Formats: sequence, C-alpha cells, structure tokens
Amino acid sequence: MPKQQAPSDLEASLQGPRYKCTVSYIGRNYFGFQRQKNLATVQGSIEKAIHKLCNHNITIYAAGRTDTGVHATGQVIHFNLPKDYPCANITSALNHFLKNDEIEIIDTSYTEPFFHARMHATSRSYLYKIKQSNGRALFDEHFKFIIKNKLDLVSMQEAANLFIGTHDFSSFRAANCQAKSPIKTLMNFEIYEAVDGEYHFSIQARSFLHNQVRIMVGTLYHVGQGLITPKDVEIIMKAKTRTATPYTAPAHGLYLTKVTYD
Amino acid sequence: MPKQQAPSDLEASLQGPRYKCTVSYIGRNYFGFQRQKNLATVQGSIEKAIHKLCNHNITIYAAGRTDTGVHATGQVIHFNLPKDYPCANITSALNHFLKNDEIEIIDTSYTEPFFHARMHATSRSYLYKIKQSNGRALFDEHFKFIIKNKLDLVSMQEAANLFIGTHDFSSFRAANCQAKSPIKTLMNFEIYEAVDGEYHFSIQARSFLHNQVRIMVGTLYHVGQGLITPKDVEIIMKAKTRTATPYTAPAHGLYLTKVTYD
Repeated sequence: MPKQQAPSDLEASLQGPRYKCTVSYIGRNYFGFQRQKNLATVQGSIEKAIHKLCNHNITIYAAGRTDTGVHATGQVIHFNLPKDYPCANITSALNHFLKNDEIEIIDTSYTEPFFHARMHATSRSYLYKIKQSNGRALFDEHFKFIIKNKLDLVSMQEAANLFIGTHDFSSFRAANCQAKSPIKTLMNFEIYEAVDGEYHFSIQARSFLHNQVRIMVGTLYHVGQGLITPKDVEIIMKAKTRTATPYTAPAHGLYLTKVTYD
Repeated sequence: MPKQQAPSDLEASLQGPRYKCTVSYIGRNYFGFQRQKNLATVQGSIEKAIHKLCNHNITIYAAGRTDTGVHATGQVIHFNLPKDYPCANITSALNHFLKNDEIEIIDTSYTEPFFHARMHATSRSYLYKIKQSNGRALFDEHFKFIIKNKLDLVSMQEAANLFIGTHDFSSFRAANCQAKSPIKTLMNFEIYEAVDGEYHFSIQARSFLHNQVRIMVGTLYHVGQGLITPKDVEIIMKAKTRTATPYTAPAHGLYLTKVTYD
C-alpha cells in the first residue's frame, strides 16, 4: 500500500475555516504589503507568522495592497487554516510571532468560506496627515508629511469637493496602475485641522486607483500653498492624463484606516 | 623662537561667546543624556556635531541629565564656541550633522558668559504619557507607557495633590540619587485625560531627585488601578524610605518639556 502523502499547502488550507483579521502596521520598514522575494513585506511577515502557527505555507489576501512606506490601522486580510483554531488564539499567537515586526493583529474572526477581503470590500477609508513645522518635527517625521508653511484649508476643501462623486480619475493614477477603468466614485473627502498646523485628509471610496490618494493629496497641497487654484484642479481632472499634475504626496503620511463589508 | 602652540580645547572655548540651545530628542536609542565612553548618548552626539562645526572638543552642559530612554522636547544646553558664529548657522549646521541622529536643535541664542543651563534653571517641566490599550498600540509603544486597564483619574489627582508644595521626597528617589537634600518643592502636578484612554501627568518643580517623576507616576499608577489609596500615598511619603513604594514608571513615557530661567 502506498504511503499516504501529506496534503499540499493548498489542500491543507481548504480543510479548515476561513478567518478575517484586522491588521495594523507601520509602513516604514516594509517594501509595501505585497510579498516580494528577499524583501521585508507585510504579507511576507504575516505569512511567516502563520507558518509558525500551523506549519503550512498559507497565502493571505488583503483589502488594500498598500505601497512601500504606507501605514495601516485598519487593514483587513483573510486566509484559511488547515484546522480550527479559536480566534483569540490566532490573534495572540500571530502577535507573539510578529513581536519583532511592526505589525499587529488587532482582532480575528471567523468568516464565510467564500468571503474575500479585497473583492467584497464595499468601502476603504484612508487618512493622510500633513504637519506644518519650522523644524524637523522629530516625533512626527516618519508618521506625517512635514511641511514648512501653513496651508489654506478653505481652498483645499473647495478643490477636494470636485473629487466627490463619480469621475474619470485618469489624471490621478500612477503610470503603472493596472485598473481596467479610471472611473471611481468618491463618497467622502474631508479636510480638517486636527491640532494647530496639522491637516488631516479623510477620504473614502469603494476602491481607488494606484496612488490615487497620494496624487489627489499632492495636488491639494499645491492648492493649499496657493500655487494652483481649485479651478486648476478642475482643468487637471478634465485633462484625464497623469502628466496634468506632477505631485505625489509621500507615502509616510498615508494610513489605511478602515475597510467595510456588507 | 618657539612655535606658537594651538590653544587647548578649553582655552579655545573660552575665546568665543556662550550659546544656549533648546533641544529635542527621542530617548529610545540613547543611553541617556550624559556622555559615556563607547555608548550612544545625547551629549556625545551633540558634542560630535559641535566638533564637526568648529574642530574643537567642546563640553556642553544640560538643564536635565535625562536617563536612558527618556525623551525631551524642551531640553536646554549651553556651551562656548572658540569664535562667533551666527545663531541660525549653529542651529542649521548642528542639525545637518545630527541628521542621522534622533536629536534636533530647535533654536540657538547668545547668552551671558556665566549663564549655566543646569544651575540657573528656575523650573523644569516634565510630561508623562500613559495610554490604555487592549493591544500593543504599535504607533505609541515607544512613546507612551501602554497599560491594559483604565485608571481612576480622580483618585490619582487626589494623591498627586499631596506632592504639591515642599516635602521630603526620600520615598521617591532612586537608591543612587546623589542630591544632598531630599527636600524638593513641587509647583504643579496636574493629571488629565488627553484623548480617550490617554492620561497625561504634567509636573513642574525647580529641580527633582533622581527618578522622582517616574517613581511618583508609578505610585499614582497603582492608585489609579485601585491597588493603593491616596491615604497610602500619604503613608509612603511619611515613611521617607525608597522601599516604601516599589514602582518606577518606565522611561519611554517621560518627556522633559520645558526649562525656564529668570
């Protein structure tokens, strides 16, 4: 009788339940979310931790594949495990294995067998933080985009309002963006002064084009400095070409804060 | 005729003006303020930067010789330079040489030839930050003392009021404290909830005993958890011995925020 083969990682993962986790991470030391050979990535670190838990190479799927340097306080991932572990044990075990990483599993829950963290997301919320400082702003330099001069909040919000609704965002997508359609629907784009000299951009949509948030914020940053007007932003939008606006705000000011599902 | 000798570092430093700088630093990667051979210290890094500026080994003097891990947003130092440099140039040059450190010179000004940052300080203000979190609190873990349970603000403030005024703080000094007298005068000790679940302890005195702030906060943390009462804190104070209270709050929650002079 032939020896029984151990199940493959894929087979193993299909034997157990599907889990959904909320995840927080500091983007600084990772080459983005998505696994890359020989580079530190959020996906790579979490999959290593899961391997330590169940001894299988399990693939995880995320709501948003954040770029290098982008932070998250509310990323959502899903994965199957080969057998049933209590949710609280998964949270504590993964956090134990991630203790030398800048990644934290906030919570874990069971989810439907066909739930998909990316495909089933009905909204993604991002927060972008800009801080005005005369100096280096030592305690904020890795967590906010530090700028020299104060910004005009009113004109930035006026321009941001142009983004709300359904539009062709071709002018606000990275050259390498792989989305089929440049049409996206923004539900919300609110800018407020959090504390003196700190501007927070709160943005919500079902999904975004690659770099869309950072290009929109970079463009509004130009509006806030008085370099361009809200009218110019309208012209940039209508141009429907990436070359219409040159500025992408840096990654370390951006946070994926929340993902919702029906 | 004998060749003229170059002035010693001490002689050189006495030839030029005396400067006073406000300094910010993240305590995490330093073995405290005070210079130590072969260890990264704030004093060591700033003195190295000054050496790059003027090519002399200049000694700096600080208002507070903060311990390993303690942060500062308003530390004050003084030093002499062998010749006159404009203050703004000193700030920018030192910050340039400190760019790979977690130290920032906030501003530089000329000061009296006999001004002394430590001896002439009339008040020092410290802030201690505690954050309640169910998890690791990734973005705060190096900057606040993270605790599991909420604290009772009212009873902590009641106990903190006992510290205000002139008292024998023998119960709240480190075993290795070298101050001649344990008598200190606290001008202010205010505790407030900064945002949900975040407790800030704002403390002001002309000077403090070694570890006094951290031992006082540690003791109040026990009060806030209901483990001891404000009455117990009175008994601890009257005991006048370090063994009366066991708890020193961790260094990474503490900030030297301000030093004043007449």
